[in-house]
Amino acid sequence: MSNEIEIGRGKRATKAYSLDDVAIVPNRRTRDPKDVSVSWQIDAFAFETPILGAPMDSVTSPATAIALGKLGGLGVLNLEGLWTRYENPEPVLAEIAGLRSEASTRNDSKITAKLQELYAAPIQPELIGTRLAEIRESGVVVAGSLTPQRTKEYSQAVIDAGVDIFVIRGTTVSAEHVSQNTEPLNLKQFIYELDVPVIVGGAAGYTPAMHLMRTGAAGVLVGFGGGASSTTRRTLGIHAPMATAIADVAAARRDYIEETGGRYVHVIADGGLGNSGDIVKAIAMGADAVMLGTALARAEEAPGAGYHWGMEAVHEVSPRGDRAQIGTVGSLEHVLYGPSHETNGTSNLVGALRRSMATTGYSTLKEFQRVDVVLSPYESDRF
Amino acid sequence: MSNEIEIGRGKRATKAYSLDDVAIVPNRRTRDPKDVSVSWQIDAFAFETPILGAPMDSVTSPATAIALGKLGGLGVLNLEGLWTRYENPEPVLAEIAGLRSEASTRNDSKITAKLQELYAAPIQPELIGTRLAEIRESGVVVAGSLTPQRTKEYSQAVIDAGVDIFVIRGTTVSAEHVSQNTEPLNLKQFIYELDVPVIVGGAAGYTPAMHLMRTGAAGVLVGFGGGASSTTRRTLGIHAPMATAIADVAAARRDYIEETGGRYVHVIADGGLGNSGDIVKAIAMGADAVMLGTALARAEEAPGAGYHWGMEAVHEVSPRGDRAQIGTVGSLEHVLYGPSHETNGTSNLVGALRRSMATTGYSTLKEFQRVDVVLSPYESDRF
Amino acid sequence: MSNEIEIGRGKRATKAYSLDDVAIVPNRRTRDPKDVSVSWQIDAFAFETPILGAPMDSVTSPATAIALGKLGGLGVLNLEGLWTRYENPEPVLAEIAGLRSEASTRNDSKITAKLQELYAAPIQPELIGTRLAEIRESGVVVAGSLTPQRTKEYSQAVIDAGVDIFVIRGTTVSAEHVSQNTEPLNLKQFIYELDVPVIVGGAAGYTPAMHLMRTGAAGVLVGFGGGASSTTRRTLGIHAPMATAIADVAAARRDYIEETGGRYVHVIADGGLGNSGDIVKAIAMGADAVMLGTALARAEEAPGAGYHWGMEAVHEVSPRGDRAQIGTVGSLEHVLYGPSHETNGTSNLVGALRRSMATTGYSTLKEFQRVDVVLSPYESDRF
Amino acid sequence: MSNEIEIGRGKRATKAYSLDDVAIVPNRRTRDPKDVSVSWQIDAFAFETPILGAPMDSVTSPATAIALGKLGGLGVLNLEGLWTRYENPEPVLAEIAGLRSEASTRNDSKITAKLQELYAAPIQPELIGTRLAEIRESGVVVAGSLTPQRTKEYSQAVIDAGVDIFVIRGTTVSAEHVSQNTEPLNLKQFIYELDVPVIVGGAAGYTPAMHLMRTGAAGVLVGFGGGASSTTRRTLGIHAPMATAIADVAAARRDYIEETGGRYVHVIADGGLGNSGDIVKAIAMGADAVMLGTALARAEEAPGAGYHWGMEAVHEVSPRGDRAQIGTVGSLEHVLYGPSHETNGTSNLVGALRRSMATTGYSTLKEFQRVDVVLSPYESDRF
Repeated sequence: MSNEIEIGRGKRATKAYSLDDVAIVPNRRTRDPKDVSVSWQIDAFAFETPILGAPMDSVTSPATAIALGKLGGLGVLNLEGLWTRYENPEPVLAEIAGLRSEASTRNDSKITAKLQELYAAPIQPELIGTRLAEIRESGVVVAGSLTPQRTKEYSQAVIDAGVDIFVIRGTTVSAEHVSQNTEPLNLKQFIYELDVPVIVGGAAGYTPAMHLMRTGAAGVLVGFGGGASSTTRRTLGIHAPMATAIADVAAARRDYIEETGGRYVHVIADGGLGNSGDIVKAIAMGADAVMLGTALARAEEAPGAGYHWGMEAVHEVSPRGDRAQIGTVGSLEHVLYGPSHETNGTSNLVGALRRSMATTGYSTLKEFQRVDVVLSPYESDRF
Repeated sequence: MSNEIEIGRGKRATKAYSLDDVAIVPNRRTRDPKDVSVSWQIDAFAFETPILGAPMDSVTSPATAIALGKLGGLGVLNLEGLWTRYENPEPVLAEIAGLRSEASTRNDSKITAKLQELYAAPIQPELIGTRLAEIRESGVVVAGSLTPQRTKEYSQAVIDAGVDIFVIRGTTVSAEHVSQNTEPLNLKQFIYELDVPVIVGGAAGYTPAMHLMRTGAAGVLVGFGGGASSTTRRTLGIHAPMATAIADVAAARRDYIEETGGRYVHVIADGGLGNSGDIVKAIAMGADAVMLGTALARAEEAPGAGYHWGMEAVHEVSPRGDRAQIGTVGSLEHVLYGPSHETNGTSNLVGALRRSMATTGYSTLKEFQRVDVVLSPYESDRF
Repeated sequence: MSNEIEIGRGKRATKAYSLDDVAIVPNRRTRDPKDVSVSWQIDAFAFETPILGAPMDSVTSPATAIALGKLGGLGVLNLEGLWTRYENPEPVLAEIAGLRSEASTRNDSKITAKLQELYAAPIQPELIGTRLAEIRESGVVVAGSLTPQRTKEYSQAVIDAGVDIFVIRGTTVSAEHVSQNTEPLNLKQFIYELDVPVIVGGAAGYTPAMHLMRTGAAGVLVGFGGGASSTTRRTLGIHAPMATAIADVAAARRDYIEETGGRYVHVIADGGLGNSGDIVKAIAMGADAVMLGTALARAEEAPGAGYHWGMEAVHEVSPRGDRAQIGTVGSLEHVLYGPSHETNGTSNLVGALRRSMATTGYSTLKEFQRVDVVLSPYESDRF
Repeated sequence: MSNEIEIGRGKRATKAYSLDDVAIVPNRRTRDPKDVSVSWQIDAFAFETPILGAPMDSVTSPATAIALGKLGGLGVLNLEGLWTRYENPEPVLAEIAGLRSEASTRNDSKITAKLQELYAAPIQPELIGTRLAEIRESGVVVAGSLTPQRTKEYSQAVIDAGVDIFVIRGTTVSAEHVSQNTEPLNLKQFIYELDVPVIVGGAAGYTPAMHLMRTGAAGVLVGFGGGASSTTRRTLGIHAPMATAIADVAAARRDYIEETGGRYVHVIADGGLGNSGDIVKAIAMGADAVMLGTALARAEEAPGAGYHWGMEAVHEVSPRGDRAQIGTVGSLEHVLYGPSHETNGTSNLVGALRRSMATTGYSTLKEFQRVDVVLSPYESDRF
């Protein structure tokens, strides 16, 4: 019953599970995929599909934020990335895509050094306004993200530019950051004073998520940032297996509803959701929506042009990720809605979610969070 | 005792096991392989060997259904495949076998697109009659399969043509399919009105299997379709490890016998039984018979000509499988009865089953379902 | 506490462990390797080292049986192998070593067919006498093996030729073999009437081992035959993880001592002991001695000339093993006693056993059976 | 709760975990990395960073001991290695680095034989003085190591030369070594009579560590020597998974404090800490400091010149390790303090430790030993 394991005398660990460890199983009833709804609503904003584009330069540009919005999702622009550091980031993106790996694509220190150099260009606050305005003009919901470290410095620029949803995203974001050098961001006060809903994270457990919920956030990102391109476990020893993390944060959501007499904070799985099966399982674990990196970076429109990297990969002194080559699958619409000619879960993401829900007999995402799950480590094909 | 595991706070999963996770162990008595019977009977039909050929175009043609019947098994013809879409499917089969993979054989979207195109040809109901008649003329037991989605449309053609055993097979088949658009098949009524025994599935758990048994089916297929060529877990997040699935459905059989005062519904393992060891273990888990894809597709007579694919691989919008290259081992007789020169369980399938039963001291399939089992993950050879 | 796991409703399995799953750990005291004894005695025969050469044609010839005997161990000649089928087996051995694999060395059906053909030559009973006489002349302990199937036919020839230790070895040997066609060997009576000590097996569990002990055997082989070259799990679905098997049979030995008021039956681990670490762990699990195949087939003197295969690989209709290429390490003396220049446990087998016992503070094999053990799956090196 | 597992009837094992099996997880509070202290003090010696250079010839020379000391750590010179066997070991090191592997770099018996030959040169006691004097002149803390087997013979030379910290290090060191041939080292008396603090090990469990603590040692090394280059498990069957070993020894430290009314013995993880994540997890398991081999051998200044081997690899009769090719990452300062351009945890080791502590909200190493841990086997990237 308890998940506490004794590692050695007096040192206990909690057994945690990845999405690869679990799978969903059909139960009695089946349903027509056409009768399934995958719509999602946060605050006043309704979306046809519960997919957010991660604020990563390989995934979300103003153009892909607009495209994703028109296709029913929500693109979140990284306001500390290339789009606010360069007037014209296109040549920089081309340069990154053009970097040739000398050894393997993993841990190429020359590529990492080049990324670090390109991201050392200063943020130009006026570009924050320019980029958000471009998205707003298209008519889609506008969302931009800052890290907690820079929220105080740049949030006014964001507010002035106008966003519908404000995202505060870091590898690990806590409601109580301690520093002797700088006065840290008071999340609770910041959110209270802000007029727009805030999504904040990553959090990877019950307690930190509960604390973030108590700041007044509309949504909490579950995860530690990164997925395909992350090396946090190897470099920092930190790892938060997603199946357990999502279930724990969903439990915090349930308890917070009771604590507040009804306030519903959305749980958004963020990181390591590389194919449609992962998305299905994230919802099954209790997520309301998913924030995708790799999966959307495979779109033809993605700025990464077949490559993918996160902000942790460009950290000035402690890079914890790589520029990963992920290839291109088809248009963003093809990736989301198919029809698919790929059999590895890289296209028709929404169709697959719909089909899984139908096969197990559920008609809404909220109900689908209760689907039966088996624990069964991923087997490599042996044929 | 309980197999319930806590994935995260409040989210539980059932620990499930694959056939690779288990093995059988000899107990006290041994027996002469010649004294072992592997015969199987369903309804009025007796078979020397408990092997069914899967209704997949790479496995079962009218010719191989006849050959398998003469060798003591039962070939099930897919009545929605190439044989009912093309007057002469031979060139189509040749074209599929001739498709060259540009990258690896897995997830080649061009091959998938070509398969989708070839299977977009309409079903010609009159060919259902032609194909079944061809099998009937040979004198073997005649069996054909439809998906639940098309059973209403084509079942009359099948009945008119005449079958001995009617198979309704889909990735997941439930006794209660819900749709707002089309009136779904009422399995119970359909089976009640039909004159021939029906085998239906796949089902992958106790409850859905019990509901299928209550429809009056003579047999239930255990599994989710596909095996070697399936990517359902990656695309849909759905997975039903076979050892657990078979044992659960066998438990439903036992309870259903009690519930009905003696009605015995046959449990047929379907999917992922690639070699003789898998067949042995499927029976050990409680199966009465096995439906084989890959294992029979390796026969020289198999229409796939060294390739194997399932209906899920040709789905028009959500393909969940690949055309897998599996090679050819020898004649169908060699595959079933040897003598074997292969040491990987790809030939003499029936001989291996017989030998395993003898080594553990059992003389009938029914008794062999009680053999001792160990849980021990498959180790890769390290020499 | 219990090792019973529920695979599915009502189907239980026993969790079983391989030698790779376990390791020994040093406890408080350490000891000088020179003070350690690895001597072993069975019946009236004392050996400096607890190592038996497996009755496999790639391992034991009359010459290597003599060499192993002179080095303190016991070579067991297979009396149904090439040495009793051919007047001069040397060219046959050379032919086997010279077979070129067309694809990989595993599951090459042409090589298997050739082996089957070479082993189809009839056994010449007079050669049994010739071979055993050759060993006897050298002055070492003489041991030969038959399978249970052929013990009735050839045992008189063996007895006439004279052996010190009689070995009855098959994949699975039970005390109660049932056959409707031939009258099976009555092991108990056979052993009772025989004048020499009998070692019999393989047995892989408590109950079958206890029954073999009750036949009056002096030693029981633990295992299912084969190791590096075996494919029994894939072909027959049978597998008996060695750590659990040895511990279970050792428990039978302990209970049998009590049952008989003191009769000690030796437990000999047989199969899958490829390097010195495996030998150490087999003793730690409770074995009194080890029967080695691969490990000795790596000696320069070994008849296999760098290749290794078992009798199950040459079975006329159900081959369950391969001719495996294992290479050559050095002289038999080097393999047993070093000094070693190999770091993978393929040489100085006895020195390694001695060192492990010293590091954990034990001075005799019998005491070492109580050493502390950890359960920790083998990790592949990640550097 | 208990970690006791039944391997077979009556044979129990303790489940043990490697560092790869665990990871740390952020909890509520986060902290500024600048506010984190990684300082460590043993006896009268304070260090900025809790990193010891292993006494291995590929890692620590007099020059790198000085360099590591100036960078805030402690280099321990192996006083039985090349630096005390050769007046000028540089050509020997160059020869080792120049050995070309004929097959793979693992288990090349020719390389092992060459290493054995080079290490067969006798130890020249006067060189012990020369080497330690060279380190002392630089002003850093001086530490040298002997094996228990040679401590009696050479300790006087070490004492005469003068060391600040005396290290006694072997694969397994026990407080009670038994020998019938030579009078073993009486550790307790030796340490009592010695004027300088002693660090002793490896020990891999609660009991042996407790006994070593009772000898009066200032610190205990946890582990079995070796890591990347070790083959102890394969050769001797001995393995002590590090996460469990460290936690067990930390528990002995806690109990020993109580037993003595306050004596604190430092726990130093030694072996298998190849990247920064491993260092983080070793502290999290309860270590006060870490002794690094591979991780420091990757420095440009390292004497191994891109290769790494331990004393167990050069053992005259039982080599249990290889010369492993590990490559070079950058200067020692870069390896320790970055800034990093590597994303695999091979540089900025101290920065990573600092960042992990900050992310989980801890400000001292001692507090960080209480960080939350999850059990989650290392997943290979599947993208």
